[in-house]
Amino acid sequence: MVATNALPHRAVVEHFVRQAVYQRLGKPLPERASGPSPLVVNVSARHCHLTLEAVETLFGKGHQLTVHKWLYQEGQFAAKETLTLIGPRSRVISNLRILGPCRNLNQVELSYTDGIALGFDLPLRSSGNIKGTLGCMLMGPAGFFKMSEGVIRALRHVHMSPDDADFYGVKAGGDMTLKIGGPCALTLEKMLVRVDKSFKLEVHIDTDEGNACNLQPDTPCELIA
Amino acid sequence: MVATNALPHRAVVEHFVRQAVYQRLGKPLPERASGPSPLVVNVSARHCHLTLEAVETLFGKGHQLTVHKWLYQEGQFAAKETLTLIGPRSRVISNLRILGPCRNLNQVELSYTDGIALGFDLPLRSSGNIKGTLGCMLMGPAGFFKMSEGVIRALRHVHMSPDDADFYGVKAGGDMTLKIGGPCALTLEKMLVRVDKSFKLEVHIDTDEGNACNLQPDTPCELIA
Repeated sequence: MVATNALPHRAVVEHFVRQAVYQRLGKPLPERASGPSPLVVNVSARHCHLTLEAVETLFGKGHQLTVHKWLYQEGQFAAKETLTLIGPRSRVISNLRILGPCRNLNQVELSYTDGIALGFDLPLRSSGNIKGTLGCMLMGPAGFFKMSEGVIRALRHVHMSPDDADFYGVKAGGDMTLKIGGPCALTLEKMLVRVDKSFKLEVHIDTDEGNACNLQPDTPCELIA
Repeated sequence: MVATNALPHRAVVEHFVRQAVYQRLGKPLPERASGPSPLVVNVSARHCHLTLEAVETLFGKGHQLTVHKWLYQEGQFAAKETLTLIGPRSRVISNLRILGPCRNLNQVELSYTDGIALGFDLPLRSSGNIKGTLGCMLMGPAGFFKMSEGVIRALRHVHMSPDDADFYGVKAGGDMTLKIGGPCALTLEKMLVRVDKSFKLEVHIDTDEGNACNLQPDTPCELIA
Protein backbone atom coordinates (compact mmCIF):
# COMPACT_ATOMS: atom_id res chain seq x y z
CA MET A 1 0.00 0.00 0.00
CA VAL A 2 1.52 3.34 -1.05
CA ALA A 3 0.53 6.78 0.18
CA THR A 4 -0.53 9.00 -2.69
CA ASN A 5 -0.75 12.47 -1.21
CA ALA A 6 -1.04 14.87 -4.13
CA LEU A 7 0.59 17.76 -2.25
CA PRO A 8 3.43 17.72 0.29
CA HIS A 9 2.54 18.83 3.81
CA ARG A 10 2.70 22.58 4.48
CA ALA A 11 5.49 22.05 7.03
CA VAL A 12 7.61 20.20 4.47
CA VAL A 13 7.33 23.05 1.97
CA GLU A 14 8.12 25.64 4.67
CA HIS A 15 11.15 23.60 5.76
CA PHE A 16 12.64 23.52 2.25
CA VAL A 17 11.83 27.18 1.54
CA ARG A 18 13.44 28.23 4.82
CA GLN A 19 16.55 26.21 4.10
CA ALA A 20 16.82 27.62 0.55
CA VAL A 21 16.33 31.24 1.69
CA TYR A 22 18.99 31.02 4.40
CA GLN A 23 21.39 29.39 1.92
CA ARG A 24 20.79 32.22 -0.60
CA LEU A 25 21.39 34.80 2.10
CA GLY A 26 24.59 33.02 3.08
CA LYS A 27 23.38 32.89 6.69
CA PRO A 28 23.51 29.93 9.08
CA LEU A 29 20.19 28.17 9.60
CA PRO A 30 18.39 28.73 12.91
CA GLU A 31 18.43 25.65 15.16
CA ARG A 32 14.80 24.78 14.45
CA ALA A 33 15.26 24.78 10.68
CA SER A 34 18.56 22.93 10.59
CA GLY A 35 17.22 19.47 11.48
CA PRO A 36 16.90 16.76 8.86
CA SER A 37 13.08 16.96 8.89
CA PRO A 38 10.34 19.56 9.23
CA LEU A 39 8.29 19.39 12.44
CA VAL A 40 4.69 18.39 11.80
CA VAL A 41 2.19 18.49 14.69
CA ASN A 42 -1.15 16.78 14.11
CA VAL A 43 -4.22 16.36 16.27
CA SER A 44 -5.57 12.80 16.41
CA ALA A 45 -9.31 12.79 16.92
CA ARG A 46 -10.83 9.70 18.54
CA HIS A 47 -10.25 6.62 16.40
CA CYS A 48 -9.67 2.88 16.48
CA HIS A 49 -7.30 0.29 15.05
CA LEU A 50 -8.80 -3.10 14.18
CA THR A 51 -7.72 -6.62 13.29
CA LEU A 52 -8.87 -8.16 10.00
CA GLU A 53 -11.13 -10.45 12.05
CA ALA A 54 -12.85 -7.46 13.70
CA VAL A 55 -13.32 -5.70 10.33
CA GLU A 56 -14.94 -8.81 8.84
CA THR A 57 -17.22 -9.26 11.86
CA LEU A 58 -18.32 -5.61 11.70
CA PHE A 59 -18.50 -5.07 7.93
CA GLY A 60 -18.90 -8.57 6.47
CA LYS A 61 -16.71 -11.48 5.33
CA GLY A 62 -13.99 -10.39 2.89
CA HIS A 63 -14.55 -6.66 3.53
CA GLN A 64 -11.47 -4.46 3.10
CA LEU A 65 -11.07 -0.97 4.54
CA THR A 66 -11.24 1.80 1.93
CA VAL A 67 -9.11 4.96 2.01
CA HIS A 68 -10.86 8.18 3.06
CA LYS A 69 -7.64 10.21 3.54
CA TRP A 70 -3.95 9.34 3.58
CA LEU A 71 -2.17 10.31 6.78
CA TYR A 72 1.30 11.82 7.12
CA GLN A 73 2.92 8.52 8.15
CA GLU A 74 3.63 6.42 5.04
CA GLY A 75 0.90 3.87 4.27
CA GLN A 76 -1.41 4.92 7.13
CA PHE A 77 -4.89 6.14 6.31
CA ALA A 78 -8.22 7.21 7.77
CA ALA A 79 -10.76 4.75 6.42
CA LYS A 80 -14.14 5.65 4.97
CA GLU A 81 -15.63 3.14 7.41
CA THR A 82 -16.80 4.32 10.83
CA LEU A 83 -18.30 2.50 13.80
CA THR A 84 -20.55 3.01 16.76
CA LEU A 85 -18.90 2.45 20.14
CA ILE A 86 -21.08 1.36 23.06
CA GLY A 87 -19.53 2.02 26.46
CA PRO A 88 -20.00 0.25 29.79
CA ARG A 89 -22.93 2.50 30.75
CA SER A 90 -24.65 2.01 27.39
CA ARG A 91 -23.65 5.47 26.28
CA VAL A 92 -22.51 5.64 22.66
CA ILE A 93 -20.06 7.43 20.39
CA SER A 94 -21.11 7.29 16.76
CA ASN A 95 -18.93 7.86 13.68
CA LEU A 96 -15.80 6.50 15.37
CA ARG A 97 -13.18 6.60 12.60
CA ILE A 98 -11.15 3.48 11.78
CA LEU A 99 -7.48 3.96 10.87
CA GLY A 100 -5.95 1.47 8.44
CA PRO A 101 -4.31 -0.75 7.52
CA CYS A 102 -5.44 -3.54 9.88
CA ARG A 103 -3.22 -4.33 12.86
CA ASN A 104 -2.77 -7.40 15.04
CA LEU A 105 -4.72 -5.86 17.93
CA ASN A 106 -7.91 -3.91 18.52
CA GLN A 107 -7.49 -0.54 20.20
CA VAL A 108 -9.73 2.50 20.68
CA GLU A 109 -8.07 5.86 21.40
CA LEU A 110 -10.29 8.44 23.09
CA SER A 111 -9.72 11.79 24.78
CA TYR A 112 -10.52 12.31 28.46
CA THR A 113 -13.42 14.50 27.29
CA ASP A 114 -14.79 11.46 25.43
CA GLY A 115 -14.13 9.29 28.48
CA ILE A 116 -16.13 11.62 30.74
CA ALA A 117 -19.01 11.68 28.23
CA LEU A 118 -19.03 7.86 28.16
CA GLY A 119 -18.50 7.41 31.92
CA PHE A 120 -15.21 5.62 31.20
CA ASP A 121 -12.17 5.95 33.48
CA LEU A 122 -9.56 5.90 30.69
CA PRO A 123 -6.06 4.62 31.41
CA LEU A 124 -3.15 6.60 29.93
CA ARG A 125 -1.17 4.12 27.83
CA SER A 126 1.31 4.03 24.98
CA SER A 127 -0.21 2.58 21.83
CA GLY A 128 -0.18 -1.23 21.88
CA ASN A 129 0.15 -1.46 25.67
CA ILE A 130 -3.46 -2.38 26.41
CA LYS A 131 -3.15 -5.25 28.90
CA GLY A 132 -5.68 -4.94 31.73
CA THR A 133 -7.57 -2.02 30.20
CA LEU A 134 -11.36 -1.91 29.84
CA GLY A 135 -13.10 -3.03 26.67
CA CYS A 136 -16.25 -1.97 24.87
CA MET A 137 -18.74 -3.14 22.28
CA LEU A 138 -18.36 -2.02 18.66
CA MET A 139 -21.29 -1.98 16.25
CA GLY A 140 -20.95 -2.03 12.46
CA PRO A 141 -23.39 -2.55 9.60
CA ALA A 142 -22.81 -6.35 9.57
CA GLY A 143 -22.65 -7.05 13.29
CA PHE A 144 -21.20 -6.49 16.74
CA PHE A 145 -17.64 -7.05 17.90
CA LYS A 146 -16.83 -7.29 21.61
CA MET A 147 -13.45 -5.87 22.59
CA SER A 148 -12.47 -7.39 25.92
CA GLU A 149 -9.78 -4.72 26.41
CA GLY A 150 -8.11 -1.89 24.51
CA VAL A 151 -9.89 1.41 25.25
CA ILE A 152 -7.19 3.95 26.20
CA ARG A 153 -6.14 7.53 26.16
CA ALA A 154 -2.96 7.37 24.09
CA LEU A 155 0.16 9.00 25.53
CA ARG A 156 1.13 12.07 23.55
CA HIS A 157 4.04 11.03 21.38
CA VAL A 158 6.41 11.95 18.59
CA HIS A 159 7.32 9.68 15.65
CA MET A 160 10.79 10.09 14.21
CA SER A 161 13.51 8.43 12.16
CA PRO A 162 16.88 7.45 13.68
CA ASP A 163 18.38 10.55 11.96
CA ASP A 164 15.89 12.82 13.74
CA ALA A 165 16.58 11.05 17.05
CA ASP A 166 20.31 11.69 16.56
CA PHE A 167 19.68 15.36 15.73
CA TYR A 168 17.63 15.91 18.90
CA GLY A 169 19.84 13.63 21.00
CA VAL A 170 16.98 11.42 22.17
CA LYS A 171 16.28 7.69 22.25
CA ALA A 172 13.18 5.56 21.66
CA GLY A 173 11.10 5.41 24.84
CA GLY A 174 12.44 8.75 26.11
CA ASP A 175 10.56 11.99 26.73
CA MET A 176 10.49 15.28 24.87
CA THR A 177 8.72 18.63 25.32
CA LEU A 178 6.60 20.50 22.78
CA LYS A 179 6.19 24.27 23.08
CA ILE A 180 3.10 25.56 21.30
CA GLY A 181 2.75 29.32 20.78
CA GLY A 182 -0.15 31.63 19.95
CA PRO A 183 -2.76 33.44 22.07
CA CYS A 184 -3.36 30.44 24.35
CA ALA A 185 0.16 29.06 24.39
CA LEU A 186 1.13 25.96 26.35
CA THR A 187 3.95 23.50 26.74
CA LEU A 188 3.33 19.74 26.65
CA GLU A 189 5.73 17.64 28.66
CA LYS A 190 6.32 13.88 28.76
CA MET A 191 5.93 13.33 25.01
CA LEU A 192 6.94 9.74 24.33
CA VAL A 193 9.65 9.33 21.66
CA ARG A 194 8.96 6.58 19.09
CA VAL A 195 11.75 5.81 16.63
CA ASP A 196 11.57 3.74 13.45
CA LYS A 197 13.29 3.92 10.07
CA SER A 198 9.89 4.26 8.41
CA PHE A 199 8.69 7.18 10.61
CA LYS A 200 8.42 10.78 9.44
CA LEU A 201 8.89 13.45 12.13
CA GLU A 202 5.38 14.00 13.50
CA VAL A 203 3.89 14.82 16.88
CA HIS A 204 0.49 13.34 17.70
CA ILE A 205 -1.60 15.10 20.32
CA ASP A 206 -5.28 14.51 21.04
CA THR A 207 -8.26 16.83 20.65
CA ASP A 208 -8.14 17.99 24.30
CA GLU A 209 -4.54 19.06 23.87
CA GLY A 210 -5.16 20.56 20.43
CA ASN A 211 -8.19 22.53 21.63
CA ALA A 212 -6.55 23.65 24.89
CA CYS A 213 -4.14 25.70 22.73
CA ASN A 214 -6.40 26.13 19.66
CA LEU A 215 -3.75 24.55 17.41
CA GLN A 216 -3.99 25.91 13.86
CA PRO A 217 -1.86 25.20 10.76
CA ASP A 218 0.19 28.36 11.37
CA THR A 219 0.60 28.00 15.16
CA PRO A 220 4.33 28.06 15.98
CA CYS A 221 5.60 24.80 17.53
CA GLU A 222 9.01 23.86 18.88
CA LEU A 223 10.23 20.40 19.86
CA ILE A 224 12.71 20.36 22.73
CA ALA A 225 14.81 17.44 23.95
CA MET B 1 -25.85 36.64 49.78
CA VAL B 2 -23.36 34.70 51.88
CA ALA B 3 -21.45 31.59 50.81
CA THR B 4 -22.17 28.72 53.14
CA ASN B 5 -19.58 26.09 52.25
CA ALA B 6 -19.72 23.53 55.04
CA LEU B 7 -16.09 22.45 54.58
CA PRO B 8 -13.03 24.50 53.63
CA HIS B 9 -11.43 23.64 50.28
CA ARG B 10 -8.87 20.81 50.33
CA ALA B 11 -6.11 23.25 49.24
CA VAL B 12 -6.89 25.57 52.17
CA VAL B 13 -6.53 22.73 54.68
CA GLU B 14 -3.29 21.54 53.04
CA HIS B 15 -1.91 25.07 53.11
CA PHE B 16 -2.49 25.47 56.87
CA VAL B 17 -1.25 21.94 57.69
CA ARG B 18 1.93 22.54 55.68
CA GLN B 19 2.56 25.87 57.40
CA ALA B 20 1.97 24.32 60.84
CA VAL B 21 4.24 21.32 60.17
CA TYR B 22 7.14 23.45 58.94
CA GLN B 23 6.73 25.76 61.93
CA ARG B 24 6.82 22.76 64.34
CA LEU B 25 9.95 21.45 62.61
CA GLY B 26 11.52 24.90 62.89
CA LYS B 27 12.24 24.85 59.16
CA PRO B 28 11.71 27.66 56.63
CA LEU B 29 8.63 27.22 54.43
CA PRO B 30 9.21 26.25 50.80
CA GLU B 31 8.45 29.11 48.38
CA ARG B 32 5.15 27.59 47.26
CA ALA B 33 3.77 27.28 50.77
CA SER B 34 4.92 30.65 52.03
CA GLY B 35 2.40 32.79 50.14
CA PRO B 36 -0.54 34.38 51.92
CA SER B 37 -3.03 32.02 50.21
CA PRO B 38 -3.26 28.40 49.08
CA LEU B 39 -3.33 27.86 45.32
CA VAL B 40 -6.66 26.48 44.12
CA VAL B 41 -7.03 25.40 40.48
CA ASN B 42 -10.55 24.75 39.24
CA VAL B 43 -11.94 23.63 35.91
CA SER B 44 -14.85 25.73 34.62
CA ALA B 45 -17.16 23.63 32.50
CA ARG B 46 -19.31 25.46 29.94
CA HIS B 47 -21.64 27.95 31.62
CA CYS B 48 -23.37 31.30 31.23
CA HIS B 49 -23.89 34.52 33.16
CA LEU B 50 -27.25 36.26 32.75
CA THR B 51 -28.97 39.54 33.48
CA LEU B 52 -32.10 39.61 35.63
CA GLU B 53 -34.06 40.46 32.47
CA ALA B 54 -32.78 37.32 30.71
CA VAL B 55 -33.57 35.14 33.74
CA GLU B 56 -37.15 36.47 33.85
CA THR B 57 -37.63 35.96 30.10
CA LEU B 58 -36.33 32.39 30.31
CA PHE B 59 -37.82 31.27 33.63
CA GLY B 60 -40.76 33.63 34.20
CA LYS B 61 -41.46 37.02 35.76
CA GLY B 62 -40.05 37.35 39.27
CA HIS B 63 -37.99 34.14 39.04
CA GLN B 64 -34.84 34.08 41.13
CA LEU B 65 -31.87 31.75 40.56
CA THR B 66 -31.55 29.04 43.21
CA VAL B 67 -28.23 27.76 44.57
CA HIS B 68 -27.09 24.33 43.37
CA LYS B 69 -23.51 24.63 44.68
CA TRP B 70 -21.46 27.45 46.14
CA LEU B 71 -18.25 28.20 44.26
CA TYR B 72 -14.85 29.05 45.74
CA GLN B 73 -15.19 32.80 45.07
CA GLU B 74 -17.32 34.42 47.78
CA GLY B 75 -21.00 34.77 46.86
CA GLN B 76 -20.69 33.01 43.47
CA PHE B 77 -22.75 29.91 42.83
CA ALA B 78 -23.75 27.35 40.23
CA ALA B 79 -27.51 27.64 39.91
CA LYS B 80 -29.95 24.74 39.83
CA GLU B 81 -31.33 26.26 36.63
CA THR B 82 -29.93 25.17 33.28
CA LEU B 83 -30.69 26.21 29.70
CA THR B 84 -30.61 24.95 26.15
CA LEU B 85 -28.30 26.89 23.83
CA ILE B 86 -29.12 26.94 20.12
CA GLY B 87 -26.16 27.82 17.91
CA PRO B 88 -26.03 29.48 14.48
CA ARG B 89 -26.30 26.14 12.68
CA SER B 90 -29.25 25.03 14.81
CA ARG B 91 -27.07 22.66 16.76
CA VAL B 92 -27.80 22.62 20.48
CA ILE B 93 -26.10 22.25 23.84
CA SER B 94 -28.51 21.21 26.55
CA ASN B 95 -28.07 21.53 30.32
CA LEU B 96 -25.96 24.70 30.04
CA ARG B 97 -25.35 25.69 33.66
CA ILE B 98 -26.12 29.24 34.82
CA LEU B 99 -23.75 30.85 37.32
CA GLY B 100 -25.22 33.33 39.77
CA PRO B 101 -25.80 35.94 40.97
CA CYS B 102 -27.13 37.89 37.98
CA ARG B 103 -24.74 40.27 36.21
CA ASN B 104 -25.24 43.32 34.02
CA LEU B 105 -24.40 41.40 30.83
CA ASN B 106 -25.19 38.07 29.20
CA GLN B 107 -22.19 35.88 28.41
CA VAL B 108 -21.76 32.23 27.45
CA GLU B 109 -18.37 30.60 28.07
CA LEU B 110 -17.63 27.50 25.97
CA SER B 111 -14.55 25.41 25.24
CA TYR B 112 -13.14 25.10 21.71
CA THR B 113 -14.38 21.49 21.78
CA ASP B 114 -17.91 22.84 22.36
CA GLY B 115 -17.35 25.43 19.62
CA ILE B 116 -16.37 22.75 17.09
CA ALA B 117 -19.42 20.66 18.04
CA LEU B 118 -21.67 23.70 17.51
CA GLY B 119 -19.90 24.93 14.37
CA PHE B 120 -19.00 28.18 16.20
CA ASP B 121 -15.71 30.00 15.59
CA LEU B 122 -15.21 31.14 19.19
CA PRO B 123 -13.24 34.30 19.93
CA LEU B 124 -10.76 34.16 22.83
CA ARG B 125 -11.77 36.97 25.21
CA SER B 126 -11.40 38.04 28.80
CA SER B 127 -14.68 37.84 30.69
CA GLY B 128 -16.84 40.91 30.08
CA ASN B 129 -15.07 41.88 26.85
CA ILE B 130 -17.73 40.65 24.44
CA LYS B 131 -18.08 43.50 21.95
CA GLY B 132 -18.39 42.23 18.37
CA THR B 133 -18.67 38.55 19.33
CA LEU B 134 -21.35 36.23 17.97
CA GLY B 135 -24.59 35.62 19.83
CA CYS B 136 -26.93 32.67 20.17
CA MET B 137 -30.46 31.77 21.16
CA LEU B 138 -31.19 30.55 24.70
CA MET B 139 -34.23 28.45 25.53
CA GLY B 140 -35.72 28.10 29.01
CA PRO B 141 -38.96 26.69 30.38
CA ALA B 142 -40.77 30.05 30.07
CA GLY B 143 -39.41 31.26 26.75
CA PHE B 144 -36.57 32.19 24.44
CA PHE B 145 -33.94 34.88 24.92
CA LYS B 146 -31.88 36.12 21.98
CA MET B 147 -28.31 37.08 22.84
CA SER B 148 -27.02 39.38 20.09
CA GLU B 149 -23.42 38.86 21.27
CA GLY B 150 -21.48 37.26 24.12
CA VAL B 151 -20.46 33.71 23.18
CA ILE B 152 -16.73 33.37 23.93
CA ARG B 153 -13.95 31.10 24.98
CA ALA B 154 -12.78 32.76 28.19
CA LEU B 155 -9.07 33.50 28.56
CA ARG B 156 -7.51 31.27 31.20
CA HIS B 157 -7.08 33.47 34.26
CA VAL B 158 -6.19 33.68 37.92
CA HIS B 159 -8.19 35.55 40.56
CA MET B 160 -6.20 37.03 43.45
CA SER B 161 -6.23 39.60 46.21
CA PRO B 162 -3.83 42.57 46.23
CA ASP B 163 -1.76 40.68 48.89
CA ASP B 164 -1.36 37.71 46.56
CA ALA B 165 -0.44 40.03 43.67
CA ASP B 166 2.26 41.61 45.87
CA PHE B 167 3.58 38.17 46.88
CA TYR B 168 3.92 37.03 43.24
CA GLY B 169 5.04 40.46 42.04
CA VAL B 170 2.33 40.76 39.38
CA LYS B 171 -0.27 43.35 38.45
CA ALA B 172 -3.89 43.18 37.24
CA GLY B 173 -3.98 42.58 33.49
CA GLY B 174 -0.57 40.90 33.47
CA ASP B 175 0.30 37.30 32.58
CA MET B 176 1.33 34.32 34.70
CA THR B 177 2.26 30.70 34.02
CA LEU B 178 0.76 27.59 35.62
CA LYS B 179 2.80 24.38 35.74
CA ILE B 180 0.64 21.28 36.13
CA GLY B 181 2.35 17.98 37.00
CA GLY B 182 1.35 14.34 36.79
CA PRO B 183 1.56 11.70 34.04
CA CYS B 184 0.44 14.10 31.29
CA ALA B 185 2.04 17.25 32.62
CA LEU B 186 1.78 20.58 30.87
CA THR B 187 2.45 24.26 31.40
CA LEU B 188 -0.18 26.89 30.63
CA GLU B 189 1.14 30.28 29.61
CA LYS B 190 -0.59 33.65 29.20
CA MET B 191 -2.85 33.28 32.24
CA LEU B 192 -4.54 36.64 32.76
CA VAL B 193 -4.12 38.12 36.25
CA ARG B 194 -7.31 39.53 37.80
CA VAL B 195 -6.96 41.38 41.09
CA ASP B 196 -9.69 42.44 43.51
CA LYS B 197 -9.92 42.78 47.28
CA SER B 198 -12.79 40.27 47.28
CA PHE B 199 -10.93 37.59 45.26
CA LYS B 200 -9.56 34.36 46.72
CA LEU B 201 -6.49 32.91 44.95
CA GLU B 202 -7.96 30.66 42.27
CA VAL B 203 -7.00 29.66 38.74
CA HIS B 204 -9.82 29.00 36.27
CA ILE B 205 -9.07 26.78 33.30
CA ASP B 206 -11.59 25.23 30.93
CA THR B 207 -12.45 21.58 30.28
CA ASP B 208 -10.09 21.28 27.30
CA GLU B 209 -7.20 22.46 29.46
CA GLY B 210 -8.27 20.36 32.45
CA ASN B 211 -8.68 17.21 30.34
CA ALA B 212 -5.46 17.77 28.35
CA CYS B 213 -3.59 17.20 31.65
CA ASN B 214 -6.25 15.07 33.41
CA LEU B 215 -6.36 17.52 36.34
CA GLN B 216 -7.31 15.74 39.58
CA PRO B 217 -7.68 17.07 43.15
CA ASP B 218 -4.15 15.83 44.00
CA THR B 219 -2.40 16.93 40.79
CA PRO B 220 0.56 19.18 41.74
CA CYS B 221 0.22 22.76 40.45
CA GLU B 222 2.60 25.68 40.64
CA LEU B 223 1.88 29.32 39.79
CA ILE B 224 4.84 31.22 38.37
CA ALA B 225 5.14 34.96 37.76
